[in-house]
Amino acid sequence: MRTIGVLGGMGPAATAHFMERLVVLCAAERDQDYPPCLAYSASQIPDRTTHLVDGGPDPTADLQAGARVLEAGGVGAIAIPCNTAHAYLEAIRAVVEVPVFDMVELAAVAVATAYPGSSVGVLAATGTVRLGLYQAALAANGLAVEQPDDELQAQVMAAIREIKGGGSGRDLRLDHAIEVLRKRGAQVLVLGCTELPLAVDSASTGIPVIDATEVLARSCLEWAGGAVRP
Amino acid sequence: MRTIGVLGGMGPAATAHFMERLVVLCAAERDQDYPPCLAYSASQIPDRTTHLVDGGPDPTADLQAGARVLEAGGVGAIAIPCNTAHAYLEAIRAVVEVPVFDMVELAAVAVATAYPGSSVGVLAATGTVRLGLYQAALAANGLAVEQPDDELQAQVMAAIREIKGGGSGRDLRLDHAIEVLRKRGAQVLVLGCTELPLAVDSASTGIPVIDATEVLARSCLEWAGGAVRP
Repeated sequence: MRTIGVLGGMGPAATAHFMERLVVLCAAERDQDYPPCLAYSASQIPDRTTHLVDGGPDPTADLQAGARVLEAGGVGAIAIPCNTAHAYLEAIRAVVEVPVFDMVELAAVAVATAYPGSSVGVLAATGTVRLGLYQAALAANGLAVEQPDDELQAQVMAAIREIKGGGSGRDLRLDHAIEVLRKRGAQVLVLGCTELPLAVDSASTGIPVIDATEVLARSCLEWAGGAVRP
Repeated sequence: MRTIGVLGGMGPAATAHFMERLVVLCAAERDQDYPPCLAYSASQIPDRTTHLVDGGPDPTADLQAGARVLEAGGVGAIAIPCNTAHAYLEAIRAVVEVPVFDMVELAAVAVATAYPGSSVGVLAATGTVRLGLYQAALAANGLAVEQPDDELQAQVMAAIREIKGGGSGRDLRLDHAIEVLRKRGAQVLVLGCTELPLAVDSASTGIPVIDATEVLARSCLEWAGGAVRP
């Protein structure tokens, strides 16, 4: 089996959750049935949304350094369980020879495959939204997009920040945002921030959910040669 | 903050759980408040108990190689969230310059501090039991030890193997083993295998529980300079 690289820590809880999904989604009987994984929880990388929206410190060099640590450690590919970090995807790809998964594109393809032509509600961090990462990927796959307006987005981002700080996650502001997107016509919901699966119960959204974290974990396991649970 | 190294994958679920504990036990508000962590889920390392008890392949060289990967990746110390792997602790320490935590010793000291002079029930993998890792550490700290007899130990090990294969964890065989140790006079229970906190509900054991995984995670956070939750 091949070794999965994880450039994480954005945030650390999201990365721990991603590691857990790599285990839970793998059909295994013994330790050795799971693919090896080298995960760098590089928590000191400057905040992506703060850079993209508020002109804070640029995380590019730290993201590149983290990817280099993983490549030097022997990984065969790199996954980044942070959607907003995908704003820097090409800069990361430029400094390593191993492939780097595109979680946003993988999630968009997963939606288009399961719900072709649908209207898609997107919950994501403000950096992801402002850059239009999901709008572009979903539109390229023939999907319409519903996103929160600025006021609602500020509430979603506040909830994401609480999860980063160890908050329990279940948050009325997220329930409200999902309700608004649904009323505007969203037929399927994308969790486009890796903190959100810690907070959103997919069974209670009223519409189907595509969790980008889950899509990325499945792609990693398939790539590595692990047996993936249905 | 300093970077925590995690030599894991023994098993992968236990390592994912350890990563989650590093996050949950850290008092943080932002990503950057968590210590960085480089975790190698080196799942292909040969099974420790199979080597120690049944003469299977020796994991020493793979453990050493994993520790070297972490050291080269810039970690300042290494934690090994697998109690049985501590049978090889000195061999691992011999090949790296960074310190390597001794989870067994840390757990024994935690028990002696909280319950001095007590009789301690130990649940662990058969390799850990046969080598007497906890017997030695607990005795050196002035504590008496109760361990399952061979038949009961075989049941504990079967439960551990099920957890490694993705089993839900809650297991009547573990409940039975705890009951037996308690009846024999154990006043406190040590979870001396990193799969066990996934399966044993500390609130329902009837006696206090010291979870070696939790003790190790707290030690790592303190060492790294993270704020540890009470």
